[in-house]
Amino acid sequence: MGKQAKEASYLIAKSSLTFRNNALASIAQELKKKGTLILRENQRDLKIAQNRGLSSAFLDRLRLDNKTLEKMAEMVMEVKRLPDPLGNLLWEIKRPNGLLIKRVSVPIGVIGIIYESRPDVTVQAATLCLKSGNAVVLRGGSESFFSNLTLTRILQKSILEAGLPKYTVQIVKSRERKAVKYILSLSNYLDLIIPRGGESLIKMVSLNSQIPVIKHYKGVCHTYVDRKADLKKAISITYNAKLQRPGTCNSTETLLVHKKIASTFLPKIINRLKNARCEIRGCQKTLKIYPGIKRAKREDWSTEYLEKILSIKVVDSLKEAIEHINLYGTQHSDSIITEDKKRGEEFLKRVDSAAVYLNSSTRFTDGNEFGLGAELGISTDKIHARGPMGLESLTSYKYIIYGNGQIRK
Amino acid sequence: MGKQAKEASYLIAKSSLTFRNNALASIAQELKKKGTLILRENQRDLKIAQNRGLSSAFLDRLRLDNKTLEKMAEMVMEVKRLPDPLGNLLWEIKRPNGLLIKRVSVPIGVIGIIYESRPDVTVQAATLCLKSGNAVVLRGGSESFFSNLTLTRILQKSILEAGLPKYTVQIVKSRERKAVKYILSLSNYLDLIIPRGGESLIKMVSLNSQIPVIKHYKGVCHTYVDRKADLKKAISITYNAKLQRPGTCNSTETLLVHKKIASTFLPKIINRLKNARCEIRGCQKTLKIYPGIKRAKREDWSTEYLEKILSIKVVDSLKEAIEHINLYGTQHSDSIITEDKKRGEEFLKRVDSAAVYLNSSTRFTDGNEFGLGAELGISTDKIHARGPMGLESLTSYKYIIYGNGQIRK
Repeated sequence: MGKQAKEASYLIAKSSLTFRNNALASIAQELKKKGTLILRENQRDLKIAQNRGLSSAFLDRLRLDNKTLEKMAEMVMEVKRLPDPLGNLLWEIKRPNGLLIKRVSVPIGVIGIIYESRPDVTVQAATLCLKSGNAVVLRGGSESFFSNLTLTRILQKSILEAGLPKYTVQIVKSRERKAVKYILSLSNYLDLIIPRGGESLIKMVSLNSQIPVIKHYKGVCHTYVDRKADLKKAISITYNAKLQRPGTCNSTETLLVHKKIASTFLPKIINRLKNARCEIRGCQKTLKIYPGIKRAKREDWSTEYLEKILSIKVVDSLKEAIEHINLYGTQHSDSIITEDKKRGEEFLKRVDSAAVYLNSSTRFTDGNEFGLGAELGISTDKIHARGPMGLESLTSYKYIIYGNGQIRK
Repeated sequence: MGKQAKEASYLIAKSSLTFRNNALASIAQELKKKGTLILRENQRDLKIAQNRGLSSAFLDRLRLDNKTLEKMAEMVMEVKRLPDPLGNLLWEIKRPNGLLIKRVSVPIGVIGIIYESRPDVTVQAATLCLKSGNAVVLRGGSESFFSNLTLTRILQKSILEAGLPKYTVQIVKSRERKAVKYILSLSNYLDLIIPRGGESLIKMVSLNSQIPVIKHYKGVCHTYVDRKADLKKAISITYNAKLQRPGTCNSTETLLVHKKIASTFLPKIINRLKNARCEIRGCQKTLKIYPGIKRAKREDWSTEYLEKILSIKVVDSLKEAIEHINLYGTQHSDSIITEDKKRGEEFLKRVDSAAVYLNSSTRFTDGNEFGLGAELGISTDKIHARGPMGLESLTSYKYIIYGNGQIRK
């Protein structure tokens, strides 16, 4: 599998944009044409998952229907419309000895992607890799086994018909967890591993991988309401950051509030959140201002709820807010609400996260919202790619040096 | 140690360029002022290494004298003169909803560097990290123990006097190999590990690290003399690539020669190399053309000699040369000698290495030769940084988003 991927990667790397785009157009068409087949296989997965008693949120992510298929096809066409990320001149220099040195974008090679039971990710990851000239080895959650198998066959058929190597996209055909270990064993062939999902999976992968890893880890995101905040903005942003879609990694999990405005702001926002059936867990000071809510424990500060739960802490200063975020956060997305420019800049500079916001919702951390186009997920690492990983993140570069007989003195 | 480094990293990250440059100027001065002390401690290391019977090449790399100290100080001043790699606007976009999104360069955080017994690398690594706003945890080879301890004290004193945190630079004070495992255990504090050196060290680090790793691995570099080569250039470049400094990672280890010119080219280059006492190990076809030399074994194709030894293989085609390099090389530096532009481009595009050369010596892969300024070494990975790692490679980025109350719909 690794060897097949490596061989495919050399061919896809030198393919022209037209070939890659033709394959993408064909994939989009096939997804619509083979709808009945895909939905039937997806039903098999759903039945097994239902029998295993998995949550409705889980089943929602697994489920495909005609509308989601339509959306997937549209996403593939959107990837097709993006400019070629390969062969771009990133930097160049002419040296005194006459050497012309160019830094040019190239594919990474073979990428392994380990992800949740979400068949839409299968298509998204494969098409982004294809567009960026990489071969990919996929391993989706075992509950999406039949859906992924069918989707992969469709992808391979389109790729082959476009004159590109079939093994540009491969999926590990095993439902067992050891499939992850299998991918990690391919260190001679894989150039990068991207694990998405739960804490234990990510830890296992980074601990056992000799291949470079870019983690898509959890988001413990914060909204900090400063003493100089506009309270109307603070309420609307906090509400949005928590509740617009609580199951996503860029949702706010902890609200920090400066002590000087806590007694005016907290009753307003807590009432509004409780009306939307959001559970509140407050620090001691929060409870004094708004009694009768649950007390937050230490572990709440580092918990990604992914649910309608918000922890709240009253802080003495901007400094305390920044330090809390750098200590308990996951370097994902954090926002300050303030009308004071200097305090805002202090926060934006010192909070060590992929995305730092002034007066806006943490929910914006997303490739499309950032104008990067489709994305593979959100990197919580600082190496290579940070934040939303678009096409550019799936490239490396090489130095090309043009000489005319130069030797080193 | 990790905690101290993390705390220092937050302070150094927000320091202004003036402070960092003042520290660098002070380091350069101190290196000259404390020369006697440094050389005395270096003598202690040298004596132990001599008693252990280490090679003269090894002792050369370990040895400091007034001239090398002068050079180290000059290198520090050169780093001072480089532009600030921090706070640079890399990309920006104004979204239809009014959000202004900026991608800005920031330090990586805390970097762990594991390297050979070369005290000059201690100063180079520390000053590059300081300039780029990172804290660093160093671990040099155990034979450079006393030299490194003194140098680190000098670095820390200058940094402290410049008003920056002393623990911006730290060194692991242990001579034992387990010191490497200690660094790897600091996964809560370190953001990146850079191992330089031998194969076993690099493998051990990438296998045991939960922290992202950028490998500085060996260089099995190639010079390919095409059938359309200018033979004069081919001889001069091959000779330079092999012998100008055989102990470096960008020296050519294998010469590939197209069969159509092998019988004219090989006797000329082999005679010239043998005159310089370079050992030749040839494939069967090479031996037919030039009998009496040693036969290359399969493992020669993947051996980094770092000595006056060259393996030679006659290939049937450009394609075979490319495939040989991609199979046996280490994706470091590879050169084609040809006057045929199309064949040249084919090589430059399809050889999957950090630096690919047309009609020039592989010895040019170096930060200064590329005009990047001082460098930390040569990355053989494709993730984050490839080839010579200058200041820019020691930075990450963050997204800063300026809003005015925006929420996600």
